[in-house]
Amino acid sequence: MEDIEVETLADPELSDPVLIEGLPGVGHVGKLAVEHLLEEFDSEPVRHVYADEFPPQVTLDDNVAQLARAEFHAVDAGEHDLLILTGDHQAQSNEGHYHLTDAFLDIAEEFGVEEGYALGGVPTGELVDEPSVLGAVTDADDVERLEDAGVEFREDEPAGGIVGVSGLLLGLGERRGLSVACLMGETSGYLVDPQSAQGVLEVMQDVIGFEVGFESLEERAEEMKEVVGKIQEMQNQQQGQAISDDDLRYIG
Amino acid sequence: MEDIEVETLADPELSDPVLIEGLPGVGHVGKLAVEHLLEEFDSEPVRHVYADEFPPQVTLDDNVAQLARAEFHAVDAGEHDLLILTGDHQAQSNEGHYHLTDAFLDIAEEFGVEEGYALGGVPTGELVDEPSVLGAVTDADDVERLEDAGVEFREDEPAGGIVGVSGLLLGLGERRGLSVACLMGETSGYLVDPQSAQGVLEVMQDVIGFEVGFESLEERAEEMKEVVGKIQEMQNQQQGQAISDDDLRYIG
Amino acid sequence: MEDIEVETLADPELSDPVLIEGLPGVGHVGKLAVEHLLEEFDSEPVRHVYADEFPPQVTLDDNVAQLARAEFHAVDAGEHDLLILTGDHQAQSNEGHYHLTDAFLDIAEEFGVEEGYALGGVPTGELVDEPSVLGAVTDADDVERLEDAGVEFREDEPAGGIVGVSGLLLGLGERRGLSVACLMGETSGYLVDPQSAQGVLEVMQDVIGFEVGFESLEERAEEMKEVVGKIQEMQNQQQGQAISDDDLRYIG
Amino acid sequence: MEDIEVETLADPELSDPVLIEGLPGVGHVGKLAVEHLLEEFDSEPVRHVYADEFPPQVTLDDNVAQLARAEFHAVDAGEHDLLILTGDHQAQSNEGHYHLTDAFLDIAEEFGVEEGYALGGVPTGELVDEPSVLGAVTDADDVERLEDAGVEFREDEPAGGIVGVSGLLLGLGERRGLSVACLMGETSGYLVDPQSAQGVLEVMQDVIGFEVGFESLEERAEEMKEVVGKIQEMQNQQQGQAISDDDLRYIG
Repeated sequence: MEDIEVETLADPELSDPVLIEGLPGVGHVGKLAVEHLLEEFDSEPVRHVYADEFPPQVTLDDNVAQLARAEFHAVDAGEHDLLILTGDHQAQSNEGHYHLTDAFLDIAEEFGVEEGYALGGVPTGELVDEPSVLGAVTDADDVERLEDAGVEFREDEPAGGIVGVSGLLLGLGERRGLSVACLMGETSGYLVDPQSAQGVLEVMQDVIGFEVGFESLEERAEEMKEVVGKIQEMQNQQQGQAISDDDLRYIG
Repeated sequence: MEDIEVETLADPELSDPVLIEGLPGVGHVGKLAVEHLLEEFDSEPVRHVYADEFPPQVTLDDNVAQLARAEFHAVDAGEHDLLILTGDHQAQSNEGHYHLTDAFLDIAEEFGVEEGYALGGVPTGELVDEPSVLGAVTDADDVERLEDAGVEFREDEPAGGIVGVSGLLLGLGERRGLSVACLMGETSGYLVDPQSAQGVLEVMQDVIGFEVGFESLEERAEEMKEVVGKIQEMQNQQQGQAISDDDLRYIG
Repeated sequence: MEDIEVETLADPELSDPVLIEGLPGVGHVGKLAVEHLLEEFDSEPVRHVYADEFPPQVTLDDNVAQLARAEFHAVDAGEHDLLILTGDHQAQSNEGHYHLTDAFLDIAEEFGVEEGYALGGVPTGELVDEPSVLGAVTDADDVERLEDAGVEFREDEPAGGIVGVSGLLLGLGERRGLSVACLMGETSGYLVDPQSAQGVLEVMQDVIGFEVGFESLEERAEEMKEVVGKIQEMQNQQQGQAISDDDLRYIG
Repeated sequence: MEDIEVETLADPELSDPVLIEGLPGVGHVGKLAVEHLLEEFDSEPVRHVYADEFPPQVTLDDNVAQLARAEFHAVDAGEHDLLILTGDHQAQSNEGHYHLTDAFLDIAEEFGVEEGYALGGVPTGELVDEPSVLGAVTDADDVERLEDAGVEFREDEPAGGIVGVSGLLLGLGERRGLSVACLMGETSGYLVDPQSAQGVLEVMQDVIGFEVGFESLEERAEEMKEVVGKIQEMQNQQQGQAISDDDLRYIG
């Protein structure tokens, strides 16, 4: 096997395609968002990317092994075709991140992509009722267009910059002359966050011009709220317990 | 030295050879299983594989140094010849796992292998009286044949997929069109487990069609049971001790 | 992207250019020093160096992403032109340090550099009122010249040698026949230290023969002194608090 | 710079040269031993080996920087010439150990070496009054010759095999048809151990046939014994102190 191996599954002509990346990350916001698009729209897998920088691992799907890989899917979403990049893994080394992102951008360029979006989450450290979507861009001219769609641009946020594939899609994409934006939904950072993913997708609808239903994401968000509720209840009970224990000891 | 160096010791013609891998892993189940085959059958070493991804280490055999390596042995086991892969080391990096497994599959293909078995253990976290053998495959069509031989296929198990050479023999083997199965004996994960290794070999007898005696493995399993019994006794005594200490304190 | 990619922004003719390196390190002494030169003198960016050995990261400048990189700037400082090397990152691996330093020296030689200075800090573990500037050289003949400019040469200091790009600019520079000195301002090691940076620059003025104002560095040094003062006050209060708490408990 | 760069300082004709390696390791036994030979005999530096697998570091010698490297010295010790390999560093990665040892063996073969000795220490975990010298070989035929010179060969010791350059000089040397032995002086593992180094050299005198004085090593061994004595005294005092404190508390 080469260091990075790209398998071609299909080579459709895409019309004004837009790259959308959603690999695993904070709150799985990006991955949830692109998986939702793949569920809601018709899509066709077009490339698989294998790499010795991925973990040496197979996952099991009905007991059948599947080698660690990233996947590109073509989606007909209306005005623009979408080229969606997802998978279960990030690279495991600095160089790996650079090499894989380069390979991803090569594929995007093969399909004629000139515009891309890296979707992800930005951790707030606490539960957020109405998560904002923060933005970063390769081209200052894109700020206004994205602000009109509801993206917030805050000075010096995220403070540490953006790491991993999302960061490099901007950094390496810019060097190739692509216009790439990173859209980051606020999320606690502790839980998988379908609500934040929905927020990011609502922005994307506006920015790219497609329409998608949100029922299944809303259901998952409701489920997560119940989980959160139960955790909070348990914490309260434990604190109550602790207090009664203390009281007893005190009284005793 | 090249990154990976393959030394040819012999080049016998093998008839319908089946690859069987048993490198170090959970409970040493895979390694015990293939070592048992090498003890019970006549075998011939055919390849040694050296690699700079192995630890920079020699082991000592009667004070004579032996460089870290993997070994292929040819075994005449009846209907099928076996090509057995074993050794004392796994690779020490992600890329190393990929490169070595690729080299292993190259050697298997040189000998005409079309079918392979990666043997290993799956940790249960507790002592198991009658360990099952779990399976994973590259080809869904193999499930029924293996179930008939006693392999269990459980949904989404092992949950984390399969890592290391065993996982990649499936993942990379599938990409070459080989039919590979991973057979994992249940084992506590805390001890070397000859009983689990025997369970895996009993399945292999059926699947491949050979017959092998189990006396020496059964003896080692008996020895391990005695060791386990002594550990449990010691733990009980310590707990008893602890209780009497407590009692004394309580009484005092 | 290549492992290391050098982008040419300008190719001015430099007169007797001197390389001055100030990458992040102890007390940010080197980086503060060269940033001060870039603020005070007219400068022109001449090279950007990207590398897969840098962190896979973009930083944000007004929400616009900038890929991790090192930068060379040409400065007209009088008698000698300066070729200033700075950036936000060091390499993340041993090999990376060697490869990047080699690339940096290639660029320096393209501009005709024969003499270089690696600026940094040396940690003392405590606040220093009047930080000295310690030196290390590639050529024993340079010691006297630097001592005349106020550099101290102490036997066996720093004890652990010099690591990272600064160390390798000496080690690899010497092998190319360049004359390189490392000038290290004493600093506590706990805080960003503009005062130590000024000390290093005062030496540099003398050594290379330029003149620069220090107002802005002095202001930053004043600010840091206030910060240090407040921290010390808080520590004293906490200790006082602790004592009163103890007293209360004691009294109670 | 290449990954590994060999600098030729001299190319003397060596007569029946024997390689002796003493790089940093347990108790610095190997390094002390070969440094003693370099002090006692006339020697000539013949090769310097630089590598990006060494730490990115310069050490300082009278404030002059010296890039991390390994060194070969030619020594006229009588019957055999010696080719001594020493330095301040080991490689920092698995691959690095393999690549460097390969480069070291290339150099040894250039000089016509057919026989080598890797000197080192084997940790006992406690102070040893009369340290033995343990052996491991590439060729079982060498055991008797070395036993006659006082080397002990113990079954399965050292239990973990031999790691690093010493181990690979055997492992990779054997694959080139060289006869290499590893001689390991017993040592506590906590302290630099000149006494153990002397033990190893006394064996070497016999094995290779040279004569060397041991005054300076004996002096260093005496110094270490004084240091050990003081440490033991301090520990006894602390224990005494602890006891009196306890007593006071008890009495109080």
